[in-house]
Amino acid sequence: MNILNNNLKSLTIVAGGAGFIGATLCMELLNEGRVVVVIDNFSRGRREFLANLEHTDRLFFINTDLAERAEVEIAFTQAATLGIVDEVWHLAANSDIPAGVADVDVDLRNTFMTTVEILRCMKMHGISSLYFASSSAIYGDLGEQALHEDIGPLSPISNYGAMKLASEALISAACESYLERARVFRFPNVVGIPATHGVILDFVRKLKTNRKFIEVLGDGTQRKAYLHVSDLVSAMFAVRSRSDLPNLFPINVGPIDEGVYVSWIAEQVVKRVEPSASIRFGTGNRGWIGDVPKFYYSTERIQALGWKPLLGSEDAVLRAIDEIASQECV
Amino acid sequence: MNILNNNLKSLTIVAGGAGFIGATLCMELLNEGRVVVVIDNFSRGRREFLANLEHTDRLFFINTDLAERAEVEIAFTQAATLGIVDEVWHLAANSDIPAGVADVDVDLRNTFMTTVEILRCMKMHGISSLYFASSSAIYGDLGEQALHEDIGPLSPISNYGAMKLASEALISAACESYLERARVFRFPNVVGIPATHGVILDFVRKLKTNRKFIEVLGDGTQRKAYLHVSDLVSAMFAVRSRSDLPNLFPINVGPIDEGVYVSWIAEQVVKRVEPSASIRFGTGNRGWIGDVPKFYYSTERIQALGWKPLLGSEDAVLRAIDEIASQECV
Repeated sequence: MNILNNNLKSLTIVAGGAGFIGATLCMELLNEGRVVVVIDNFSRGRREFLANLEHTDRLFFINTDLAERAEVEIAFTQAATLGIVDEVWHLAANSDIPAGVADVDVDLRNTFMTTVEILRCMKMHGISSLYFASSSAIYGDLGEQALHEDIGPLSPISNYGAMKLASEALISAACESYLERARVFRFPNVVGIPATHGVILDFVRKLKTNRKFIEVLGDGTQRKAYLHVSDLVSAMFAVRSRSDLPNLFPINVGPIDEGVYVSWIAEQVVKRVEPSASIRFGTGNRGWIGDVPKFYYSTERIQALGWKPLLGSEDAVLRAIDEIASQECV
Repeated sequence: MNILNNNLKSLTIVAGGAGFIGATLCMELLNEGRVVVVIDNFSRGRREFLANLEHTDRLFFINTDLAERAEVEIAFTQAATLGIVDEVWHLAANSDIPAGVADVDVDLRNTFMTTVEILRCMKMHGISSLYFASSSAIYGDLGEQALHEDIGPLSPISNYGAMKLASEALISAACESYLERARVFRFPNVVGIPATHGVILDFVRKLKTNRKFIEVLGDGTQRKAYLHVSDLVSAMFAVRSRSDLPNLFPINVGPIDEGVYVSWIAEQVVKRVEPSASIRFGTGNRGWIGDVPKFYYSTERIQALGWKPLLGSEDAVLRAIDEIASQECV
């Protein structure tokens, strides 16, 4: 008589799960009853982001540099002892775009090689479902064209965007051989807590250091769409619940509006944190090389799946300002 | 008084210059009077391919693994002592697509990391013109859609195609910071001599080994467009001569026809090499994973520049069969 261990539960690996978006995602996965293994190098991510969770008996952390083959192999092997790994969420990436433009190694390692090594281990372990955090940065600066999922040509203007596109390309090829289900989420700018980077956190911190004024990179006319992290995770779960989608499915996630200006964000931060401070603008409509000043992000595909965000760009930013201002007080 | 060395000539680096296409390209560059430095790992390329050239005093070889950073840095530094490096042609890549599907490292190293390291050295040395050998494989299998340069979505089905697309993405980002002129040639299937790989060489060699029959991978109904290497190089020079093109310029290169069937190629090889042999077909319309069975390659953009091939797919294949049959007799 063979006695099989039927107690092994379905397990999700979340690469980069200790980061800003990862923490919110893990919470939802745990709420579903899944076992969650976070693989993270804790460069920006922190265990504390997940400290409040009730389900800690189903949450595991492995400290791993996801660009290092030997480490990733060990992490996947460890995860497989904890449950039946049937899906991987890959959110690990560099999040400092200007740093990646100055030094190609930053995005090569953290944004691309992480994908290479994760895919390689998925193939080895026969894990066929991947949820990947891509980016609107893959589109590059296409001016006033609506950025929908089937548009071309794709001409990223940052190494971050390039290495996200490279990751998508490798996932596409994997779908032809061993990957059965790939959901490629092209994220917009995402705001909320636990904030680890981004324009709102920058402004709040600058104001805490210098209460008289804040300096804005660029002239403030960059306009971007912002999604609150709670809406982002709800969107990803909405896509995940569908079984009628193609094997390889890239999808834009974002609000329905056209976004808000950086100058407006600066004003709202000042109003919330230090109303007497002034705002000093730089020049040019790009904050840095690789910054896309304006874009028209099409979210028709995800709307057609019946998903809508609860918050538009304005409300998402206002809520995030409040959350981050409170976070930074602690 | 400063005495400058005005004898330094304009120099071209050709990465992968000892290979099939590289050899023909180098000949043309030498005919222009340029100094040519071939950087190659001689995995398939051979010095002998360039042995017949008259201008050997302007031709240099550096044996380098272009995926190894330290080696590439040394090679670029050596090249800079020989002349003023003002352009790089990057033709180095894996050419065994099935091998790259089985092991991601093959295309990761030879097709992509070569691009990373070459770009990195171009930035270091202030070399701003790049001519890059990309591939129709970046498009993936889009069925009967005409593959023009601005089409989307790009969903490569082999790691080779993925790593060519990844290279294009990195070049695109480089154009936003340090690269001033990038010409991205999306090659079709190219035939001619000195053949180092490809369907014709395979068939000819099989027939030399077994004179009774040849086996064809797949059912022979794959249809592809073929360009003769002489036409390919003339196309690249036609694009290079234009100063009125955008900074980043991807362009399909190919014949104007829709190509020929693999079964027809097999018949022509048999006719030329061993008329009494029979042909045994496999099953399925893909020779291997990552093989695109049919595609409709748009060459309107390059035709609009005034370029046309001298040979269509049929004539290119027939000429190449003759050339390769003769080559293999030596």
